[in-house]
Amino acid sequence: MNYDDVAVVLAESLPYIQKYRGKTIVIKYGGSVMKDERLKRYVINDLVLMKCIGINIVLVHGGGPFISSHLKKLNKKSIFVDGLRYTDDETMDVVQMVLCGKVNKDLVNLIEDYGGKSIGLCGIDGNMIEARKASFKVDLGNVGEIVRVNPEVINDSIDDGYIPVISSVARGIKGELYNINADTCTFRIAVSLKAQNLILLTDVPGIMTDTQDSSTLISEIKLEDIPKMYRDNIIKGGMIPKINSCAEAIKSGVKSAHIIDGRVPHCLLLELFSKKGIGTMIY
Amino acid sequence: MNYDDVAVVLAESLPYIQKYRGKTIVIKYGGSVMKDERLKRYVINDLVLMKCIGINIVLVHGGGPFISSHLKKLNKKSIFVDGLRYTDDETMDVVQMVLCGKVNKDLVNLIEDYGGKSIGLCGIDGNMIEARKASFKVDLGNVGEIVRVNPEVINDSIDDGYIPVISSVARGIKGELYNINADTCTFRIAVSLKAQNLILLTDVPGIMTDTQDSSTLISEIKLEDIPKMYRDNIIKGGMIPKINSCAEAIKSGVKSAHIIDGRVPHCLLLELFSKKGIGTMIY
Amino acid sequence: MNYDDVAVVLAESLPYIQKYRGKTIVIKYGGSVMKDERLKRYVINDLVLMKCIGINIVLVHGGGPFISSHLKKLNKKSIFVDGLRYTDDETMDVVQMVLCGKVNKDLVNLIEDYGGKSIGLCGIDGNMIEARKASFKVDLGNVGEIVRVNPEVINDSIDDGYIPVISSVARGIKGELYNINADTCTFRIAVSLKAQNLILLTDVPGIMTDTQDSSTLISEIKLEDIPKMYRDNIIKGGMIPKINSCAEAIKSGVKSAHIIDGRVPHCLLLELFSKKGIGTMIY
Amino acid sequence: MNYDDVAVVLAESLPYIQKYRGKTIVIKYGGSVMKDERLKRYVINDLVLMKCIGINIVLVHGGGPFISSHLKKLNKKSIFVDGLRYTDDETMDVVQMVLCGKVNKDLVNLIEDYGGKSIGLCGIDGNMIEARKASFKVDLGNVGEIVRVNPEVINDSIDDGYIPVISSVARGIKGELYNINADTCTFRIAVSLKAQNLILLTDVPGIMTDTQDSSTLISEIKLEDIPKMYRDNIIKGGMIPKINSCAEAIKSGVKSAHIIDGRVPHCLLLELFSKKGIGTMIY
Amino acid sequence: MNYDDVAVVLAESLPYIQKYRGKTIVIKYGGSVMKDERLKRYVINDLVLMKCIGINIVLVHGGGPFISSHLKKLNKKSIFVDGLRYTDDETMDVVQMVLCGKVNKDLVNLIEDYGGKSIGLCGIDGNMIEARKASFKVDLGNVGEIVRVNPEVINDSIDDGYIPVISSVARGIKGELYNINADTCTFRIAVSLKAQNLILLTDVPGIMTDTQDSSTLISEIKLEDIPKMYRDNIIKGGMIPKINSCAEAIKSGVKSAHIIDGRVPHCLLLELFSKKGIGTMIY
Amino acid sequence: MNYDDVAVVLAESLPYIQKYRGKTIVIKYGGSVMKDERLKRYVINDLVLMKCIGINIVLVHGGGPFISSHLKKLNKKSIFVDGLRYTDDETMDVVQMVLCGKVNKDLVNLIEDYGGKSIGLCGIDGNMIEARKASFKVDLGNVGEIVRVNPEVINDSIDDGYIPVISSVARGIKGELYNINADTCTFRIAVSLKAQNLILLTDVPGIMTDTQDSSTLISEIKLEDIPKMYRDNIIKGGMIPKINSCAEAIKSGVKSAHIIDGRVPHCLLLELFSKKGIGTMIY
Repeated sequence: MNYDDVAVVLAESLPYIQKYRGKTIVIKYGGSVMKDERLKRYVINDLVLMKCIGINIVLVHGGGPFISSHLKKLNKKSIFVDGLRYTDDETMDVVQMVLCGKVNKDLVNLIEDYGGKSIGLCGIDGNMIEARKASFKVDLGNVGEIVRVNPEVINDSIDDGYIPVISSVARGIKGELYNINADTCTFRIAVSLKAQNLILLTDVPGIMTDTQDSSTLISEIKLEDIPKMYRDNIIKGGMIPKINSCAEAIKSGVKSAHIIDGRVPHCLLLELFSKKGIGTMIY
Repeated sequence: MNYDDVAVVLAESLPYIQKYRGKTIVIKYGGSVMKDERLKRYVINDLVLMKCIGINIVLVHGGGPFISSHLKKLNKKSIFVDGLRYTDDETMDVVQMVLCGKVNKDLVNLIEDYGGKSIGLCGIDGNMIEARKASFKVDLGNVGEIVRVNPEVINDSIDDGYIPVISSVARGIKGELYNINADTCTFRIAVSLKAQNLILLTDVPGIMTDTQDSSTLISEIKLEDIPKMYRDNIIKGGMIPKINSCAEAIKSGVKSAHIIDGRVPHCLLLELFSKKGIGTMIY
Repeated sequence: MNYDDVAVVLAESLPYIQKYRGKTIVIKYGGSVMKDERLKRYVINDLVLMKCIGINIVLVHGGGPFISSHLKKLNKKSIFVDGLRYTDDETMDVVQMVLCGKVNKDLVNLIEDYGGKSIGLCGIDGNMIEARKASFKVDLGNVGEIVRVNPEVINDSIDDGYIPVISSVARGIKGELYNINADTCTFRIAVSLKAQNLILLTDVPGIMTDTQDSSTLISEIKLEDIPKMYRDNIIKGGMIPKINSCAEAIKSGVKSAHIIDGRVPHCLLLELFSKKGIGTMIY
Repeated sequence: MNYDDVAVVLAESLPYIQKYRGKTIVIKYGGSVMKDERLKRYVINDLVLMKCIGINIVLVHGGGPFISSHLKKLNKKSIFVDGLRYTDDETMDVVQMVLCGKVNKDLVNLIEDYGGKSIGLCGIDGNMIEARKASFKVDLGNVGEIVRVNPEVINDSIDDGYIPVISSVARGIKGELYNINADTCTFRIAVSLKAQNLILLTDVPGIMTDTQDSSTLISEIKLEDIPKMYRDNIIKGGMIPKINSCAEAIKSGVKSAHIIDGRVPHCLLLELFSKKGIGTMIY
Repeated sequence: MNYDDVAVVLAESLPYIQKYRGKTIVIKYGGSVMKDERLKRYVINDLVLMKCIGINIVLVHGGGPFISSHLKKLNKKSIFVDGLRYTDDETMDVVQMVLCGKVNKDLVNLIEDYGGKSIGLCGIDGNMIEARKASFKVDLGNVGEIVRVNPEVINDSIDDGYIPVISSVARGIKGELYNINADTCTFRIAVSLKAQNLILLTDVPGIMTDTQDSSTLISEIKLEDIPKMYRDNIIKGGMIPKINSCAEAIKSGVKSAHIIDGRVPHCLLLELFSKKGIGTMIY
Repeated sequence: MNYDDVAVVLAESLPYIQKYRGKTIVIKYGGSVMKDERLKRYVINDLVLMKCIGINIVLVHGGGPFISSHLKKLNKKSIFVDGLRYTDDETMDVVQMVLCGKVNKDLVNLIEDYGGKSIGLCGIDGNMIEARKASFKVDLGNVGEIVRVNPEVINDSIDDGYIPVISSVARGIKGELYNINADTCTFRIAVSLKAQNLILLTDVPGIMTDTQDSSTLISEIKLEDIPKMYRDNIIKGGMIPKINSCAEAIKSGVKSAHIIDGRVPHCLLLELFSKKGIGTMIY
């Protein structure tokens, strides 16, 4: 690409910058798309860029594969029931250590490599996320559901100029800790912050009519179309909680939610700073 | 250009944004490069973009051709002595009206077309520029030289979020008005604001060993090399006051001064946001 | 006058200062009363005094005679239809140059001579006044009517300690410029600022039962008496738009509107700082 | 006086308002000039006016005659040694009650009658004035000399918009109370506040060559002329401590000190807002 | 007591500190409990402590015995009608002098001995309490009833870090002064400040079924139980106005009102910082 | 203990509260004294109390035993050289997970149980601690030495009302992570914050002439006595780095450093809020 093209691209980004500047965007960064170091660096570069041009970025992360891998080192098997990790006390300790201690701080570290200011938090810090034991058909141990989100510590860190990076670990009213779903966590945080946008970085291109055929990607979904899509079996499997989170977020005031492919280089910029996004936008 | 390239360009702009964010850049926009409406729009688009990503932009403008043209309508000839306009009282009125009333407010208007917030000022507003009659071999009337710059009103408008656009008209201590050189005005304002950079948008590619051959463009000049360049006759003619302004600015704390070709589309972005600038940088 | 009297006058001004301190007063300064240099200096002295004791002064000016005079130099005739200037594109340029460049900045300059801090603005700056083409029986060219006033830039300049001086030139949503009526402009600005008072400096003593006999001056008019005065033909001619502006201002929350004789020395102080004003107050 | 004169007087006060606006003036109001209720009201009116136009007014008061009168009611004789009141413990109680409880709060009350905001303080409040027992040839009991002034509480009340009224009662480091000289108190407060002016309202026209002949009033005294005036016996008697206070104030940075006749109606305005003051200015 | 116990006591005070920190508590300090110097020092020590740990303390004081004593020195008899002091003009002067000048400033002085920052105010300062003549069967002279409380000056002094000490003297709209009941004054101030608690320091243990037997102390009274207690004659005599003040305060938003025995050492800490208070709490 | 004693203890704490209020105290909480859950709760209770009365608390923690225990679960042996843990990459991961993820967040969690506001940080967050590989006779892997401390993120969290809890993990300029000594970390943080006090909670009573005999505890050590104590072999073994940290802190402006026995209940309150502390104070 020659220099003139560079200038044209930058110049044409003006309306997008004006659109998002001063707004809050909450991004879920799933563990499954965090494994490729090169792609991770693209994501971080883009986050720092977005912060730098005045967008308030909040990053919520998962880390399932890293938890499983550490449990394995401890000769402990990962057990899943309906996609949820069975979390006994020993597992909870590992969840806490891997998410809050390793994945979280490594992301903060990477953001600082790119010249950003960041701070690593979890639901415990500043009493951010209160949870209680979630009830299922089977007892899943310390799997929790969110009771309320207190966004004060997130707002403080945004006001002080940081990109807060948040692990999905929460505390109960008696100080007990819970493993909570990162998608739900993201949408609840977005709502509590009155965020403008919610973005889920996943390992699929978005919602597709045929999950095997990326050409069947649906670019935009209106909130009112979702029930029909459930009936038509277009939304199914692991996509159900994601769509539910997006839908709840929009009902609670978030302007748009985006499910995009975190494996595409610079997926965030492609989704937000070009006319045609790359994933599925729900609004 | 495809979308991926767009994302790459944006992503790679991060270090440049980090470099200039929060800094003050004073830009001189000469009358000679203001005539092509399409190019003017490029300049304005880029100014608004730079402001939008957190750079404090101050725009100082000239407008010689517009003054001459209006004088002609009044059947008054433009007289120049050593490149300076002979400015009797009637001419001073026209200078004031054309610069402060027309060129200035039209630039403000255009910035707002691009979604920017702007305010049009001159050296009279907020007692910004105090001047006195400049003395030359011939009496040039109301041509003034700057006594002092009071940057308060510029700082107020930056703090309030505006791009100040400034006409090079100043006031004497008795309230008399003066026509002052826009290049000098720019450098004095840059120094008073403790600006990081000074950029002169001209109608030449920069300093060239052979002014007829743009391939002889000198990309970078160190302050200490300037005396030799005068001796070697590389700096001459209309370039002399420009180089002097740049040199004085740097001696007074401005980090770098740039003489670039205002006729190149997106010249500002090319100079500041790419590895290799397009004009001559003095530092 | 002896010194004791001076002290008594000052001492007795206390209740008036307490009445207006911290309030906003918008003053229309018509072109017709701006011609006598000595009177102009009285007006400016009084404005600076009022600002100095803590009143937020906003000055809106006209400048018709100066426009006509400059058009004449360009061999262009001033054409008026029902008191409104026919404004083709060339005339619009002159209106802009004379008002924003000359009349405006000269007033700013004079305020600074009296030790005040001032800033010269027009409806373009800070996107202050949005207008659209006004429709009349005849096409009057670029004569506009106000769509909305955005007082942000005025409030910013008041907060920063300046007396804003405002020319009645506005911009359309496509960036086209309009010549707008200064009386209307003043009242719309007063309303947008939630000003306490509106003062029109005119070349008549106020509303008179017999316009030839200044002893028939009506000192106070209640809003509800205006319709009857129209029917009785007391309000007529050029006074109609002024009374309408005043009435609209009061309906929109301005406490009182004053039509006073700008040719009387220190008319502003006489109207506001003495028991019996000199013109007509509508409330 | 007709209305035009009123306007002229007000208009001509501009340079005086500009001179004192934002500055701090500390005024000593002696007990001897506080007895005439009508004159007291003039003084208070003028103080409120000066505060209202943006001057930071601090009022320090005495009250000797009121103390003597109350002591008399208690069948206690006032004893003076070299002009200083012999202050045993019972007298100290009366000094405190009369000054802090009666004279002080009555002044605050009167200021509020004129629409001012005021607060009544003494050297105890906010640890304002630390004193210790003063030593004289004779033991004068609880007569103190100032060790240090802590202006925090005065500055707080100025910042909050009040006119602080201050009684000359101070505290020792063990909490014991002292009767201190109000003139000294005034000058020490002025210095601690970095005040611009110090004004002593007395019952004489100022410094006179012949104290019996008011036509011998000296309008201005330079600091360096004072030693000679002592030698020439022009400064003598009760004027000595006043001149000393003024001289010390000026040496410590106060711009000018004024000794004026508090019995002249509107003496403060006459001294500060007219070309020729009415008393003696030391600078 | 050994050191370990000290640490335990401090450690266990945490929940109480957390409960009151940042809240406003208005305390009435009656003249009858102010006579014992040692007890007074305990009260002041505790006030400064409470301020120091972040509680906003406001102290309203009485001083009846000191007034009577000073009147006696002046050979003036104290006359009471239904517990209210007959206040002719001469008495009013003494009330003002003794309360505002002596009792008030002595309390301020003592607070500063304990390292606190304090300021002595009365209802005159900052136009704090407006009163009018109260009407009774007999004319009681300058006994007033409160019309309104303007808490601005109290809030200013709290914001500036002071403990305001307030005398119950008020001003009428014509500047006339009134002697007002300190209990009523306290509750009206508490309501105007939206205080959390109101505490009356009295010379009885609290409300007792049998006023001669302190073992009949009632620890807690609900607002709704008060009417019955009147009927049962448990609330009677001097306790009636106190209970009325407490009840009114609670109806107006104060969380709880406490009547406690000011003669018990550290009564304030005992009431607020231990599980079981020492007096009667109404809520 | 009866209630009166409680009140006396609280009342007598006033001078200590006044001494530390508004000051910053940095506390090192060693892993060895963190194992007893009851004692840990005492420490946390006292920290929250101290924060609550206005002391800026910063908690730096270790966690060696927890690291060793987790390594053992992973079948990895802890290797120490001269008291320093050999830290290969796998160990570094465990250090990071255990300190930043488990020990740190558990402390935050406990603080919130006591009603405090807390935030868990490490040297990575906000680019707080920059380190580089420390060189020893043997290669210890990722053991680092501090290059500089950037206290911005700590100050931000103090200003926002949090107790920052800090893990001793740092980042190199290339983003590599280091295991750093918690004592050094504490003193460097104390210096960067211009803290008033530094407290090391250890598992010994303080510095003792005979380490086996707690009656030989030295209560106070002057900075200048330290060299002699080294020569006399009183400072030795694991105490050497602690004393060095304390000495360096004091040389850099910290007022006093305290080595106290973290196993004594309420050791912090005993050391700071009673006349005679419990450990060794260096000043």
